[in-house]
Amino acid sequence: MPSLDERDTAPIENETIAVQLAHRTIRAFTEDALSADELTSLFEVARHTASSSFLQQTTILRITDPAVREELHLASGQPYVGGDRGELLVFVADQHRNSRIRAEGGLDAAPLRTMNLLITALHDALLAAQNLVVAAESMGLGTCYLGSILSDPRRVIRALGLPELTFPVLGLLIGHPAQSPQYKPRLPLDVLVAENSYPRVDSYTEFLADYDEILQEYYDLRDTSKRVESFTTLVRTKVGAGGAHVSPILEVLREQGFTLD
Amino acid sequence: MPSLDERDTAPIENETIAVQLAHRTIRAFTEDALSADELTSLFEVARHTASSSFLQQTTILRITDPAVREELHLASGQPYVGGDRGELLVFVADQHRNSRIRAEGGLDAAPLRTMNLLITALHDALLAAQNLVVAAESMGLGTCYLGSILSDPRRVIRALGLPELTFPVLGLLIGHPAQSPQYKPRLPLDVLVAENSYPRVDSYTEFLADYDEILQEYYDLRDTSKRVESFTTLVRTKVGAGGAHVSPILEVLREQGFTLD
Repeated sequence: MPSLDERDTAPIENETIAVQLAHRTIRAFTEDALSADELTSLFEVARHTASSSFLQQTTILRITDPAVREELHLASGQPYVGGDRGELLVFVADQHRNSRIRAEGGLDAAPLRTMNLLITALHDALLAAQNLVVAAESMGLGTCYLGSILSDPRRVIRALGLPELTFPVLGLLIGHPAQSPQYKPRLPLDVLVAENSYPRVDSYTEFLADYDEILQEYYDLRDTSKRVESFTTLVRTKVGAGGAHVSPILEVLREQGFTLD
Repeated sequence: MPSLDERDTAPIENETIAVQLAHRTIRAFTEDALSADELTSLFEVARHTASSSFLQQTTILRITDPAVREELHLASGQPYVGGDRGELLVFVADQHRNSRIRAEGGLDAAPLRTMNLLITALHDALLAAQNLVVAAESMGLGTCYLGSILSDPRRVIRALGLPELTFPVLGLLIGHPAQSPQYKPRLPLDVLVAENSYPRVDSYTEFLADYDEILQEYYDLRDTSKRVESFTTLVRTKVGAGGAHVSPILEVLREQGFTLD
């Protein structure tokens, strides 16, 4: 197929797609809290998300207790998680609720402990998270995903009192933006999308050379104090280099009762 | 906190939230194909999704070859995946691209094989999927997630030529709706959302009694040929009862090079 980049096409313009194409991560928020209507909108949208086999395997925790928030701040290691700016949510992959429903019907939890059901719970939690993020951005709010809470999953689990068969997949900050960062250029469409089978690429260094240059230019313009990074450099230096990439996630999943068999 | 259900609040009305609250799964599509602009919109939105540490660990495969589609149809066991109605996409959790980038820099793939990096790739693939779904629905298109492709993950991997360190997380059908199903009522907000810590519930049978009734009513009205199901019955009968709940997902992840240590 001709590359979608080369085709004479453009995204359709509507309010939703405009919001989605304007996505930036926002890490600084004003003091203004979200209104009750804004919160209701976010949670109602999350509630309306598709769910694997309709088993609704997620729970969302809203953090309002400063002591709990401080624990998540420390788990994440990210300064912007501390303090009181922005709403802080945690999306939990939840097979606990369904294990309790089964137990009350005299059925065991064994099928819920498997890799299969961990994955269906991740489906539910992550699809709900992104649905909520789009709703937030449609209201002019800014968002920042916190994969970083998994740098110390035990601390998060303790702070939130997460029972067996739950796992905190992702944190999220939402608030009124106090910054307006530049768009960070992503991999081009002909790297992201392929037709019918996984693409064969002889040299990624060559395939991504143009993109590497674009990303380097972005970093140059944005912040001269930061080191210049291309995408290939990022992948070579950042993968496995700390935080949620090296924390004991498998161990913690087992401690939470996911035997993963 | 007072239950959000009991508060005097309502979702904010804007085009995006209206689309999100109107979400229904659509399984029947007209013959009309998506336009090039519609496809570009969908892929551009997916491309603009947040990505864990900006590592962009996903690839989207667009299925246009009827023979490949037939394999996915057979893997899923779902009649509506067959034929040629609706675009068929597969979201791939992809650590292969980054393993190749690392190999070309003389670095090994070990960190990419872990549970930690499988989870970050699932983040990227699933957030992109839901972002794309909202874009599709904003254009009046209907969508149907296909967790069912994981009923036979080996067949999907073979059909798509998926290399080491990739995994097909989720399929998706998108097309012009040829049906207008009723809204399927979800768990109420005070089950889905809790404050600061995981909720303590003495009896889920009691806690969910009202919801069970609402869902049973929905099934009664929708289709009298189907057995009447409450949510608690669904959880007791459907979990682990076949398909993607019992397929060899852990084994296949290992075959794909995810050692998960």
